[in-house]
Amino acid sequence: MPAGELRHLPQSSPPNAAEFDEEEAWVWSQIKAEARRDAEAEPALASYLYSTILSHSSLERSLSFHLGNKLCSSTLLSTLLYDLFLNAFSSDPSLCSAAVADLRAARVRDPACVSFSHCLLNYKGFLACQAHRVAHKLWTQQRRPLALALHSRISDVFAVDIHPAAKIGKGILFDHATGVVVGETAVIGNNCSILHHVTLGGTGKVGGDRHPKIGDGVLIGAGATILGDVKIGEGAKIGSGSVVLIDVPPKTTAVGNPARLVGGKEKPAQHE
Amino acid sequence: MPAGELRHLPQSSPPNAAEFDEEEAWVWSQIKAEARRDAEAEPALASYLYSTILSHSSLERSLSFHLGNKLCSSTLLSTLLYDLFLNAFSSDPSLCSAAVADLRAARVRDPACVSFSHCLLNYKGFLACQAHRVAHKLWTQQRRPLALALHSRISDVFAVDIHPAAKIGKGILFDHATGVVVGETAVIGNNCSILHHVTLGGTGKVGGDRHPKIGDGVLIGAGATILGDVKIGEGAKIGSGSVVLIDVPPKTTAVGNPARLVGGKEKPAQHE
Amino acid sequence: MPAGELRHLPQSSPPNAAEFDEEEAWVWSQIKAEARRDAEAEPALASYLYSTILSHSSLERSLSFHLGNKLCSSTLLSTLLYDLFLNAFSSDPSLCSAAVADLRAARVRDPACVSFSHCLLNYKGFLACQAHRVAHKLWTQQRRPLALALHSRISDVFAVDIHPAAKIGKGILFDHATGVVVGETAVIGNNCSILHHVTLGGTGKVGGDRHPKIGDGVLIGAGATILGDVKIGEGAKIGSGSVVLIDVPPKTTAVGNPARLVGGKEKPAQHE
Repeated sequence: MPAGELRHLPQSSPPNAAEFDEEEAWVWSQIKAEARRDAEAEPALASYLYSTILSHSSLERSLSFHLGNKLCSSTLLSTLLYDLFLNAFSSDPSLCSAAVADLRAARVRDPACVSFSHCLLNYKGFLACQAHRVAHKLWTQQRRPLALALHSRISDVFAVDIHPAAKIGKGILFDHATGVVVGETAVIGNNCSILHHVTLGGTGKVGGDRHPKIGDGVLIGAGATILGDVKIGEGAKIGSGSVVLIDVPPKTTAVGNPARLVGGKEKPAQHE
Repeated sequence: MPAGELRHLPQSSPPNAAEFDEEEAWVWSQIKAEARRDAEAEPALASYLYSTILSHSSLERSLSFHLGNKLCSSTLLSTLLYDLFLNAFSSDPSLCSAAVADLRAARVRDPACVSFSHCLLNYKGFLACQAHRVAHKLWTQQRRPLALALHSRISDVFAVDIHPAAKIGKGILFDHATGVVVGETAVIGNNCSILHHVTLGGTGKVGGDRHPKIGDGVLIGAGATILGDVKIGEGAKIGSGSVVLIDVPPKTTAVGNPARLVGGKEKPAQHE
Repeated sequence: MPAGELRHLPQSSPPNAAEFDEEEAWVWSQIKAEARRDAEAEPALASYLYSTILSHSSLERSLSFHLGNKLCSSTLLSTLLYDLFLNAFSSDPSLCSAAVADLRAARVRDPACVSFSHCLLNYKGFLACQAHRVAHKLWTQQRRPLALALHSRISDVFAVDIHPAAKIGKGILFDHATGVVVGETAVIGNNCSILHHVTLGGTGKVGGDRHPKIGDGVLIGAGATILGDVKIGEGAKIGSGSVVLIDVPPKTTAVGNPARLVGGKEKPAQHE
C-alpha cells in the first residue's frame, strides 16, 4: 500500500515508568554525541548546535529552547515560550516520555532520519507534536486562550494545525507534516505514522464529538482525508489520497475516493 | 456530505450601509471585552493582548497592527505594512465591513471558533483574506508590484496563496486555510466556506479568464480541486478531495475524482 | 487535462556553456531594469528593491542575499547563509545557469508571472528550488548536517520539502509550490512543471531507491501523489489529484485515484 516513505514496523513494548529515566538519559546522551560530532565536522553549524543542544543540561531544556525560538514572534516572546515549555516539561514527565517515544519512532520508521538530533532539530512534525502536547495540557488546565495562541503559532510556523483539545498518543511519526489538520474531538492512539496533508476533520455536525478516532499502530498515507466520528481500528492502513467516511476495522486497508476496504485479517492485502 | 468541521447555515441578510457602523462598533466592543477577560485570566498573554487589541482605538488599527507584525520581514518593515493597511482600511470602509462579516462567519459556522478575538488573532485564513483584500485594492489601483509583494508574504507566512487579482466577497470562512490556492481570474461570492488545501486553479489555457467562478453560499470541502473557468452555482457543495472540471448547478452537490453531481433541488443528496 | 494554470510548451534547446554568460547577463539586466521601474512607480517598495536587487552587482549576489534573509533564524544567521549561498554560486556556475533556466520557465509557462523580478522576489517555488540545489551540493560534498539544516529551513519557511539528496534538473517551474514533498531518491528531469501539493514519495520500502523518477518535460497537476520507484516518461502529464503507483510511458497522460493511462503517442488524450 502506498503511504509515503515509511517502514511501519510493530514495535517492542514501550519502557515502563521505572525504565524511562534510563531511556531518556540514553537518548539525550546520543543527541549530545551526535551534535558534538556534527559541530566538529561542520564549523558553520557549531554555534547553532551549541545554542540548540550542547549548551543545555537536558532534553527538556534543549527542546524548550528550540521550540521557543521557532514559535516566538515580535509579540509572543521566546523567553515567555521557553518558560512555558520548560514548566510544562518539568511538571509532567509524560510529555518528555512521549517526546522520547516520538524520537525513537522517527529513527525506526523513517529511512530518511539519520540521527536523533536530526529529528529533534529539523522535523517540523516532531516539533509541532511536542508543542501541541503542551498546548493540550494548557487546554485541559482551562488556559484556553494561551492554548489557542500556541496552536495558531504552530499552524503559522509549521503549517501543522492540530486543535489543542485533540488527544495524541506516544510514538507518533508525523512525516513531512506540512498541511496536517487534526480537529478538536479527534483522538490518535500510540505508535501511529501519519504522512503530510492528512486531515482528521469533521462533517458539518453542529458540535460535540465529530472527528475521527485513530487506533494504535495505524498508518495514514499522504493526503488522506478522514472525516467524521469514525473509528480506524488498530493496525489499519489508509492509502494515500483516500477519502474515508466509514469505520475501518483493525488490520484492514482502506483506499480510494470514497475509500473502500481492500484487505483484512482473513484476507490480507498485499502491502508493498 | 463531508466538508470539514463546518456548520454551513443560511445567513440572515447582511446589514446595509446605515446599519454597518453600529455592527462594527458592537463587534469591536465584544473583541475588547474578550481580550480584557483573557488578559485577566492569563497574565502570560496580557502583554500580547494589550499590543494586539487593547492598545488600539478601532478594529482597523488592531487589524493593521496585527497584519503588519505577521507579514513583515527584515526588508519589508512592519511600520510600512501598518501604514499601508491602515490607509487602505481608512479610505475604503467596505474592507472593514468585509472583515466584520468574515468574523461573524467564523463565529456562526465554525464550532471550534470560541470568540471574535480568537478569529482575529489566530485564524490564518481570516488574516490572509483581510490582507488579500488590501492586495486586491492595490492591484486595481495599478500598484501591482506592491500587490504582488504582499501576495508573496501572505503565501510565505500563512501558506495561503490568493492572487491579488482574484475577487472575493464578504462573509467568507477560510477554515484551517493551509494550502489554499486561488488563481488570478477566480471569483468567490458572498458567504462561502472554503476548507484547507482547496485549489481554484487553471487548466493550462494561455491566459485570459481561466479560473473558477464560485457563487454565493458555496461550501468547498478540504482538498477539493476546482479547475478552469467553470461555474459553481449558488449554495452548491463540493465534497472533500473532489476534482471538479465541470459546472455545478445551484444547490447541487459534487463529489469524487473526477467529480460527478449527486444531488440537487429536485433530488437532494443526504447531507450529514 | 487539468493541471493548474500553466502553459506547458516545448522549449527551444537550452543555451550551451558558451552562450550562458550572455544569457545570464541579459536576464540580470532585465531584472535590474524591472526593479528600477518598479521602485520609481512605487516609492513604498524602493528600499526593498534596493536592498534585494539594485544594490547587488550580480544575480548570484542578489539571490544569495534574498535567500539568506528569507531562510535565516535567530540561531541560523543571515550572514552565514549569505556566505554559504554565495560560495556555492561562485564555485559552481551550473547553479546560476539552472536559476536562469528556472526564471525563464516561469516567464514562459506561467501566465501569472509578469516579470523576471516578480519570480526572483516572490515565487516560493523558485526560491525553494534554488536553495535546494545548494543543499544538494552540500549533500554530495558530505556536508550532510548542514544540508539537512537548510532543508529544514526551506520546509519551515516555504512549506516546500525537498530532500537534499533528490536530483532536480533545470528549467523547473514549481508553481504555487505550497506542500510539495520530494523524497530522498527522487529524480526530476529538465523542463518539468510541478504544481502545489505534489508528492514524489515512497511506499514503505525499508531503504534504497524508493522514489519516482520524473523524465524531461513532465507536467504534474496540483495535488498529484506519485509513489515508489516508478518512471514517469518524457513529456507525460499527470492529472490533478491523481494517485500514481505505476510507470507512465512518455507523452502519456495519467489521471484518477488510482491513476489510469488515458492517452499516448498513438491515441493522444484531448488536453484542454
